[in-house]
Amino acid sequence: MSEVAARTPARSGARRYTPGRVMSFSDAVFAIAITLLVLPLTDLDLDPERLAEQLRSATPQIVVFAVGFTVIGLYWLSHHAWFSRVRTVDDRLLKINLVVLACVAFLPFPTSVLGTHSGTAGTVFYAASVAFTGTAFALMWTYLGRNPELFEADSAAALRRHTLVGLVTPVVFAASIPIALVSADGGKLCWLL
Amino acid sequence: MSEVAARTPARSGARRYTPGRVMSFSDAVFAIAITLLVLPLTDLDLDPERLAEQLRSATPQIVVFAVGFTVIGLYWLSHHAWFSRVRTVDDRLLKINLVVLACVAFLPFPTSVLGTHSGTAGTVFYAASVAFTGTAFALMWTYLGRNPELFEADSAAALRRHTLVGLVTPVVFAASIPIALVSADGGKLCWLL
Amino acid sequence: MSEVAARTPARSGARRYTPGRVMSFSDAVFAIAITLLVLPLTDLDLDPERLAEQLRSATPQIVVFAVGFTVIGLYWLSHHAWFSRVRTVDDRLLKINLVVLACVAFLPFPTSVLGTHSGTAGTVFYAASVAFTGTAFALMWTYLGRNPELFEADSAAALRRHTLVGLVTPVVFAASIPIALVSADGGKLCWLL
Amino acid sequence: MSEVAARTPARSGARRYTPGRVMSFSDAVFAIAITLLVLPLTDLDLDPERLAEQLRSATPQIVVFAVGFTVIGLYWLSHHAWFSRVRTVDDRLLKINLVVLACVAFLPFPTSVLGTHSGTAGTVFYAASVAFTGTAFALMWTYLGRNPELFEADSAAALRRHTLVGLVTPVVFAASIPIALVSADGGKLCWLL
Repeated sequence: MSEVAARTPARSGARRYTPGRVMSFSDAVFAIAITLLVLPLTDLDLDPERLAEQLRSATPQIVVFAVGFTVIGLYWLSHHAWFSRVRTVDDRLLKINLVVLACVAFLPFPTSVLGTHSGTAGTVFYAASVAFTGTAFALMWTYLGRNPELFEADSAAALRRHTLVGLVTPVVFAASIPIALVSADGGKLCWLL
Repeated sequence: MSEVAARTPARSGARRYTPGRVMSFSDAVFAIAITLLVLPLTDLDLDPERLAEQLRSATPQIVVFAVGFTVIGLYWLSHHAWFSRVRTVDDRLLKINLVVLACVAFLPFPTSVLGTHSGTAGTVFYAASVAFTGTAFALMWTYLGRNPELFEADSAAALRRHTLVGLVTPVVFAASIPIALVSADGGKLCWLL
Repeated sequence: MSEVAARTPARSGARRYTPGRVMSFSDAVFAIAITLLVLPLTDLDLDPERLAEQLRSATPQIVVFAVGFTVIGLYWLSHHAWFSRVRTVDDRLLKINLVVLACVAFLPFPTSVLGTHSGTAGTVFYAASVAFTGTAFALMWTYLGRNPELFEADSAAALRRHTLVGLVTPVVFAASIPIALVSADGGKLCWLL
Repeated sequence: MSEVAARTPARSGARRYTPGRVMSFSDAVFAIAITLLVLPLTDLDLDPERLAEQLRSATPQIVVFAVGFTVIGLYWLSHHAWFSRVRTVDDRLLKINLVVLACVAFLPFPTSVLGTHSGTAGTVFYAASVAFTGTAFALMWTYLGRNPELFEADSAAALRRHTLVGLVTPVVFAASIPIALVSADGGKLCWLL
């Protein structure tokens, strides 16, 4: 597939874009991923005879919907807050942003797994996915911090602080993995930190 | 997850945004939630032998699609009408708006339950979800009303009236819950008020 | 639900909006509806043993995807061409536009039915849905034509012509219904007119 | 359906649009198609007893998600890079763009087939779909290159180069089809070129 990538830039590295369309595309991916979280609920096969009881037993899945929505929502807040200070977009930033979006678009899968299987494997898989997504974000902020021509000058120091603080998320979620191997609920408690 | 939230604002409380990207993200969530309402219909398992008959018996679900579309559509109208007067967005408004969007993104689930189970439990669940969503909206409008620096000055009084009138929806839907416990159709009649 | 509708306008009838956000919300609904057309294909249960053969037998459904995409795409072209000349949006236009969008968001259902059941009932249901959607569009263009303060002055005559020509679609699709009752394929041939 | 097409232009051929709304509609279709790639994963029926093992055996499907995301993402990059230099949009460009979007919206289907059936038929079907999409793109760039009044003058030569280089993708994917008929994995290796 490298030839598809190669043909995008006419004069490789020289291409610059305004961030508007990148942000609206990213917003759409975030919005779709966050709204798809409801599908495992919509797909539930409910028995009309015992509906009240079954809705009550769907509570864990509703909680997982809320958790998944919060995680993607907070990532959107972060993307929104910092991408709005990007002055210009180059090809590399476009590609790193696509990796970030791939992680976000993937999150409905581990969220749906966590909704139906809250044991160790489901917990580890979800934690690993969130940690991976956080790492992709940190990579993007690091790239922006190192390319001051792409970014609002007086926000560079704040972005570096944000990148460091933002690393806490993948570290916490990664750290929860060995704990979840011992106890799934212990791993989940870590996330509240 | 609190650390993800904490890292978003560089200087907490001082951050301000233009409402453009928040509105387009919100629009996308509304648009996706409203369009996902068709999925329970698309997923129907129809028997080719008795298709005409089965389409006729799908009428309640088509009505529920129309009801669900109307409810989300009216919430979008409300969001559209009042958010267009927001002058600037702070971090708290972003988060309240995310809660509102979580409610909206959740609505396809109770709508789909109501489509297949129009009895008491389905009716109560739908009414409770709409009432909850209306409360989140009222919370957002109240916050905006109390923060005149975020909102067009000469619309503040109109917004306060809108917030009060808007509370009628969650109150009516909440009031329909005890009625629906006695009679599902009685509860639904309340919504027409 | 009338109270939700009622509270949107502060001074009923006096509210005016710029068309920007209405267009982007409409675009999102069109884009989602048109992209959801692929779901019945994605949901096909294919047998790995006889995949080539099964893909070949999925041809009618791929054709229906193309037909459904063309219909929604042409409606989007119409919406795009004429809404771009709207100068200002009032509450009634917002609501008529929501009805139009409800029809568009509904189309994946009859399209999916047509994909699996190409007999009389599926054909009639699809034709009726397209005819209904076309009528909603005609209603919107008629409303715009009658409210010159909402619409670019020098395009009003062209819009009236467009409304009349546009009525051909629902009329043809409605006319194909009795024909489809006799012969499903005969009804479909009508659509090519 | 020709009458729907015919009525869109009031004075056929004379209609011109600004590219803004076309780009936002296209972005939405790309964003939805790329995010729908996760649905076959979300729909997996996982057995809680053997979850860890099953997640491991889902690796090919996760790889296919990454491949599918990369392909659609690179097409979006191409669309983004070159459509941003379009100065004005005519009716024919709108229609060619709709064909391109139909191909993109269709891609989740062959991607999902490839995820579950990585043998010859699935590989050929996916390669053919990507080749077809690349051809539609090449058609659009050729049309733009021949209509200099639609396109930034000083980018026309670069666009012609891009169109030629871009044809490499459909040619490679088309060439992989006979190879995949002999060996599915051999066909896939071609894509890496």
